[in-house]
Amino acid sequence: MSNSWLDRSLIAAIQKMADPVPIRLRLGSEADESPSSPSALPTIRVSDRRALFALLRNPGINFGELYSQGRLEVEGDLLRLLESLYHIRQGIVARTASRCYGWMQINSMQGSRKNIHHHYDISNEFYQMWLDAELVYTCAYFPHEKASLEEAQKAKMDHVCRKVWLRPGETVVEAGCGWGALALHMARHYGVRVKAFNISHEQIAFARERAAREGLNSQVEFIEDDYRNISGNFDAFVSVGMLEHVGKKYYREFGRVIHRAIGDQGRGLLHFIGKNRPQPLSAWIRKRIFPGGYTPVLREAMNVLEPYNYGVLDVENLRFHYAKTCEHWLNRFERCYDRVAAHNGEFFARMWRLYLAGSTAAFRAGSLQLFQVVFAGRACKALPWTREYLYQKTADHSGQDVEWIHAMS
Amino acid sequence: MSNSWLDRSLIAAIQKMADPVPIRLRLGSEADESPSSPSALPTIRVSDRRALFALLRNPGINFGELYSQGRLEVEGDLLRLLESLYHIRQGIVARTASRCYGWMQINSMQGSRKNIHHHYDISNEFYQMWLDAELVYTCAYFPHEKASLEEAQKAKMDHVCRKVWLRPGETVVEAGCGWGALALHMARHYGVRVKAFNISHEQIAFARERAAREGLNSQVEFIEDDYRNISGNFDAFVSVGMLEHVGKKYYREFGRVIHRAIGDQGRGLLHFIGKNRPQPLSAWIRKRIFPGGYTPVLREAMNVLEPYNYGVLDVENLRFHYAKTCEHWLNRFERCYDRVAAHNGEFFARMWRLYLAGSTAAFRAGSLQLFQVVFAGRACKALPWTREYLYQKTADHSGQDVEWIHAMS
Repeated sequence: MSNSWLDRSLIAAIQKMADPVPIRLRLGSEADESPSSPSALPTIRVSDRRALFALLRNPGINFGELYSQGRLEVEGDLLRLLESLYHIRQGIVARTASRCYGWMQINSMQGSRKNIHHHYDISNEFYQMWLDAELVYTCAYFPHEKASLEEAQKAKMDHVCRKVWLRPGETVVEAGCGWGALALHMARHYGVRVKAFNISHEQIAFARERAAREGLNSQVEFIEDDYRNISGNFDAFVSVGMLEHVGKKYYREFGRVIHRAIGDQGRGLLHFIGKNRPQPLSAWIRKRIFPGGYTPVLREAMNVLEPYNYGVLDVENLRFHYAKTCEHWLNRFERCYDRVAAHNGEFFARMWRLYLAGSTAAFRAGSLQLFQVVFAGRACKALPWTREYLYQKTADHSGQDVEWIHAMS
Repeated sequence: MSNSWLDRSLIAAIQKMADPVPIRLRLGSEADESPSSPSALPTIRVSDRRALFALLRNPGINFGELYSQGRLEVEGDLLRLLESLYHIRQGIVARTASRCYGWMQINSMQGSRKNIHHHYDISNEFYQMWLDAELVYTCAYFPHEKASLEEAQKAKMDHVCRKVWLRPGETVVEAGCGWGALALHMARHYGVRVKAFNISHEQIAFARERAAREGLNSQVEFIEDDYRNISGNFDAFVSVGMLEHVGKKYYREFGRVIHRAIGDQGRGLLHFIGKNRPQPLSAWIRKRIFPGGYTPVLREAMNVLEPYNYGVLDVENLRFHYAKTCEHWLNRFERCYDRVAAHNGEFFARMWRLYLAGSTAAFRAGSLQLFQVVFAGRACKALPWTREYLYQKTADHSGQDVEWIHAMS
């Protein structure tokens, strides 16, 4: 039994497993006999036979692992390969029943702290290399496709604030505040007082320092604590990019926390990565990037709001805006790739490249969605009559051009 | 045991049952000793002791029955009473578990035909007395609160057409087309070809005649058939005010019909009355007004779309627009009340007054919601970049000011 026969059998088995995705797979320095047509997918080159075995055994984890180790290379456009794979894979998902993996990191208070620490406490300097100037690490809103990332992150913050019609003097609680950009933006431009919660120590330290530097620490309080410990009463609730870390087992509890904070009179916004069909995140993403992460379908996310009689006012899908955001991040990341690799090692740098490219591809292909859900309590006193005000250009943010419904007059 | 003692006990028992709603209940011509304060609820006056028994036994059905029979009168503002009841009742709903009644009319093809016939085949002349000129019997969209009903129904049709970005030459299938206004509007103003389905014989006959009269019958085909028999391939799917009649048992089948019609490339819109918490419609509404009706929460409605991998792009809640629409209908209905009573009898006229007043109150109080859900298949080729185009005033409907995403370029 010749080695080359074994290798060819392994390659054939992997290709068969990937069917109907037409994977071009090569081993070591093996030449690419069949010249690829312009429309063909890029070639995947695997360095050694053990890597082939690993890929065959568990492609969901080992594609990412081998890529990070440099034992799997993509010759050509990585992003294009991933997007094609996601597009074709989606068709398959549509034909098979949803699967549920038992392997999941627990999102208890202690578990969440560990899970969040893993990703968000890497180092602020790392994120500063490739995020926007304000360190907003969630989907941006591009009023036009050509807007810059900086413009789009500002526009997203305004979009969120206007969607929950913040008015001067009101109080807001934010669950999962990252480096504090949105909380500070709300305080500065909408005249509200904000309590912002986060369990990432690095992020909270940064946010507090920024609030002090910008003279906003009388208006914004950054609290290093779990969302489950939110206390106090507020006019509005916002959470941008945290539901993904809550875990669907805790949705009802999350809803109870919201209801405790804003009651029946308040309103709020949930901004989160979701899916069209229920499916866990890829095993590799959960292992290396987001332990404990789960991206719900809209139906599942309703379990946060429905038990508390919250009315959904507005849902917007910003999937392509997240694809564009990730593309910006990936481009910026590539420009600092060598610095990242020098500082954090080649494994880390390749892992992050794959994660950013994979996310871009997943949002483009529709494997991931981005939902913004606006909701209000049953006793919410005044609501905007239509959504038109969101699209009116106003110099200030006073909301004085809004036509209101006085529901309980 | 004096009769007055029995009557007083019955009244007390009903008031206790209604707790915490402070009902003012009087029997026969009994005087109202305690003069009502301006803030008190209107007085409910019941004509006879048997009516008190009936109310005590089954208020959910018998309030409506007795009102229709003229054995229960509301002294003062009926709408205000109902709205107050709904507001207070909502708080109760929020504290109790959802209940599920077994009593439900079946929504099979045959059952649906009977259920729809009950409501929609009353007579076109009846609906012409109090609907808008185009006979649009669904929630209107008021760009401003003071818009007329006619303006608001036109604006709704445009809102729907623009939400699914209809373009000249495309094909549309409509499930549940009423008297045909939307199908004809789409054809005339958006240059599309439409197949419109409805099982109400009266409505289809009217719609066909109108299409012929307006020279649109080469563009619009009205088909008297069940949505389950939709055949053919289309670019877009719309259904305005039909999901309420589908029954949640049939949502998956409804989704299959949609998927068969527009596949993975199409997009569509579902416009339907919903709730914030799962609850059946009132027993009286199901008995007298909408047999087989069910108004889902958003979570339940997702069962139409999720199995087919449809992505939700946009959800808008138009609850207050429906309250305003019903208020217009109620006012118009009151103006023709005597004609209705003369032609259809007092029972029918009072029943309809209560239904229209109750619907207005329910949308105002939030017991009912109105959702417009826009969705697209995973292979939908071009999508609007933002929703801003919906709010731009354009003379034509060409959509040329829309920035597109070419998802699968």
